[in-house]
Amino acid sequence: MNPKAVVLLSGGLDSATALAVAIKEGFDAFALSFFYGQRHQVELEAASRVAKALGASRHLVLNLDMRPIGGSALTGSLAVPKNRPVDELSEGIPVTYVPARNTVFLSYALAWAEVLESFDIFIGVNALDYSGYPDCRPEFVRSFEQTANLATKACVEGRGAVKIHAPLISLTKAQIIRLGLSLGVDYSITHSCYDPLPGGKACGHCDSCILRSRGFAGAGLADPAA
Amino acid sequence: MNPKAVVLLSGGLDSATALAVAIKEGFDAFALSFFYGQRHQVELEAASRVAKALGASRHLVLNLDMRPIGGSALTGSLAVPKNRPVDELSEGIPVTYVPARNTVFLSYALAWAEVLESFDIFIGVNALDYSGYPDCRPEFVRSFEQTANLATKACVEGRGAVKIHAPLISLTKAQIIRLGLSLGVDYSITHSCYDPLPGGKACGHCDSCILRSRGFAGAGLADPAA
Repeated sequence: MNPKAVVLLSGGLDSATALAVAIKEGFDAFALSFFYGQRHQVELEAASRVAKALGASRHLVLNLDMRPIGGSALTGSLAVPKNRPVDELSEGIPVTYVPARNTVFLSYALAWAEVLESFDIFIGVNALDYSGYPDCRPEFVRSFEQTANLATKACVEGRGAVKIHAPLISLTKAQIIRLGLSLGVDYSITHSCYDPLPGGKACGHCDSCILRSRGFAGAGLADPAA
Repeated sequence: MNPKAVVLLSGGLDSATALAVAIKEGFDAFALSFFYGQRHQVELEAASRVAKALGASRHLVLNLDMRPIGGSALTGSLAVPKNRPVDELSEGIPVTYVPARNTVFLSYALAWAEVLESFDIFIGVNALDYSGYPDCRPEFVRSFEQTANLATKACVEGRGAVKIHAPLISLTKAQIIRLGLSLGVDYSITHSCYDPLPGGKACGHCDSCILRSRGFAGAGLADPAA
């Protein structure tokens, strides 16, 4: 029997690749997605397609409305910035940042991992071609791992140590795409856009669309979802 | 203007006392409760009464169903243990433990604190008269605080450092009760029972009822909610 891993899966390019890495490394992957009031909830359909296509053992979507907390363009009425120059994307933290989102998501992953008797959690953060979110940085991931190892019954009782895998953290978007393709990821079924058009098509102008588009260009490829 | 603090409020004896401490220390208190699928959701009515009685500036109840994750008698069909001998209560971790619950709750508190521009979070955990939950221990609380300081935009941009206040962590239940009474907490409106009778009355036999009852006995007082 393979060991189990919980994989955070948004339905985007990065998390699809992280799921493929987890499976390649021999884990039975338990994919975890969230409806948290995001305006781009169409990504959950992509998550479902990706989980199925890559062969996740299970895909759980939890409902946790973060809208009452507010503070983000992704869960509120603030506009999603469009057409920002590429050299500005990594400067400062944009309004699409959702307060403490990865802390919340990793906490749920930790809870589910404990119930599954798993000690491995995958998250597709990367700190190179990214939007400057603090909870995508390696120091955050390492610190959460330490906290996790003090938080759960399974750890305290010595049944294992939690490892937070962030296999994409030091890759460029182009490198992530090449890695995913080598593992059989079909990027045509992924969704990255923060502010999709009616019908779910990517806007092409938000930070996430720009980073994705640059990634495919850098890899010398066309985006199959474009 | 007073500084703001987010206070995790279950509606029980400990969190009511933590709220009173936060207000006594001069914070505008923003109380945060959760419906997470707990069988004792009657505690949310107590939380609402307590927030009002003690003068919280706001009381937010978030809906985050943890039942699909399972793994606990509090959110599933496992029976809540009854009439356990007092000396067994601190041995091992009982089935009422909810996987990673305080990690999840503190993550939401962190998210709300960031939106409120607050850097202070209160949690009523205590590690003496408690049920042995790993996420009630001081080392967990300290580690979460470190992670929080790497997680948010407000911290990374240097606007402040998050402090997790756990003012009850080294007190006995009797000491907590005496502290709360000195701060005007009305324990008759709190609710501690994990497995209330129809109508919401405390069962008197679960670990939480036993710890509460011992606390009042230790303080030489009758439980006004009994």
